[in-house]
Amino acid sequence: MAKDMMLYWGSGSPPCWRVMIALEEKNLQGYNHKLLSFDKKEHKSEEVMKLNPRGQLPTFKHGDVVVNESIAVCMYLENQFKSQGTQLIPDDVKEQALVLQRVFETNTLQQKMYESLFYNYFIPEPERHESAQNRHKENLKTEITLWESYLQQMGKGSFVAGRSFSMADVIFFPVFAFLPRFGLSKERYPHLMEYYEMVKERPSVKSSWPPHWVEPTGGDALSDL
Amino acid sequence: MAKDMMLYWGSGSPPCWRVMIALEEKNLQGYNHKLLSFDKKEHKSEEVMKLNPRGQLPTFKHGDVVVNESIAVCMYLENQFKSQGTQLIPDDVKEQALVLQRVFETNTLQQKMYESLFYNYFIPEPERHESAQNRHKENLKTEITLWESYLQQMGKGSFVAGRSFSMADVIFFPVFAFLPRFGLSKERYPHLMEYYEMVKERPSVKSSWPPHWVEPTGGDALSDL
Repeated sequence: MAKDMMLYWGSGSPPCWRVMIALEEKNLQGYNHKLLSFDKKEHKSEEVMKLNPRGQLPTFKHGDVVVNESIAVCMYLENQFKSQGTQLIPDDVKEQALVLQRVFETNTLQQKMYESLFYNYFIPEPERHESAQNRHKENLKTEITLWESYLQQMGKGSFVAGRSFSMADVIFFPVFAFLPRFGLSKERYPHLMEYYEMVKERPSVKSSWPPHWVEPTGGDALSDL
Repeated sequence: MAKDMMLYWGSGSPPCWRVMIALEEKNLQGYNHKLLSFDKKEHKSEEVMKLNPRGQLPTFKHGDVVVNESIAVCMYLENQFKSQGTQLIPDDVKEQALVLQRVFETNTLQQKMYESLFYNYFIPEPERHESAQNRHKENLKTEITLWESYLQQMGKGSFVAGRSFSMADVIFFPVFAFLPRFGLSKERYPHLMEYYEMVKERPSVKSSWPPHWVEPTGGDALSDL
């Protein structure tokens, strides 16, 4: 079945990485894929645009079904291959509710992280303000402190929505992984950093690690968070 | 079952409205609810905060299960009451893929709409720039033109992801409804406006219409979009 799949992706993009982790967890190794360069604007190429009018990555095709939004792709894969590989959405009502809750809370983390870490990328120079940058950093700190408290409550060795790896980790980890890469403090966020050390060794995560992330860090922009 | 449910909500909030439409569509009328005032900061009250550390609405409880993120609540309700009321996520592979795709694309519409329509609310006065406001309005125009093309391709009388009302409409409509409210042009977006006229008459939408939206418009801020 993986032979009928085609993934267009970019290195280091959390949405792309999610899909790759989900494919690994659902034992769909052997899918076709093409690594594209954001710098060269290959995500705006005709090949992508005809499948994805937004010109974004991931762009994903399974047979004649096209799904491009990263969480939609992951949920589609879970629904289509429910009994194959890791079950990513639990049947138990309460467990399922928590997994869904954490999946969608990740959107807030992603937004706060982008606003802070990629401020200069998104905001043209004449519109930049130190007050805005400080506010974004404070917001990210508040957000990451909340996730630290979630993991603390969950107990040692837990994943982000329970004792088992789930869809919540598939969605959360590729966003969260930027924080350690930019120097997140092990002292102030011990539960998150312990989670990071555990999940980065997971085979699905290791084998889909962004190729340009081989060098260990992206800098220390977040070390004072 | 609806008697075990409690919804804290705010009038006109797209995330709250989604949950209310989903509850209606799943025949869960009779749920308990409490209308809170954002102006009075009632969403930061202890009653809400103990269920939702983010202090946001909706906050939703079903028995001892708490789910607060709006799309998570809607998906939870669909999973728990699959064979009750309207089926919101189709079984058919291709139809399901399109529903999921449009559900998650709505996040982009929501972001572009908030950035443009609520610029002055989110950006402190000393950080405002006309160039940013113009860019946000252009981005919203690009976004809404894409949705207009989706509806055009789908054909007359279609919903946002097919011939049937689905989860995509539950998620999309409460965001989209702001645009007609702020003067979206019937001439330039005929398919979207036809969709609007159809869906606003749907019983689930009518009975959950934001109480403070009784007056027909919010202004003409988007009439030149």
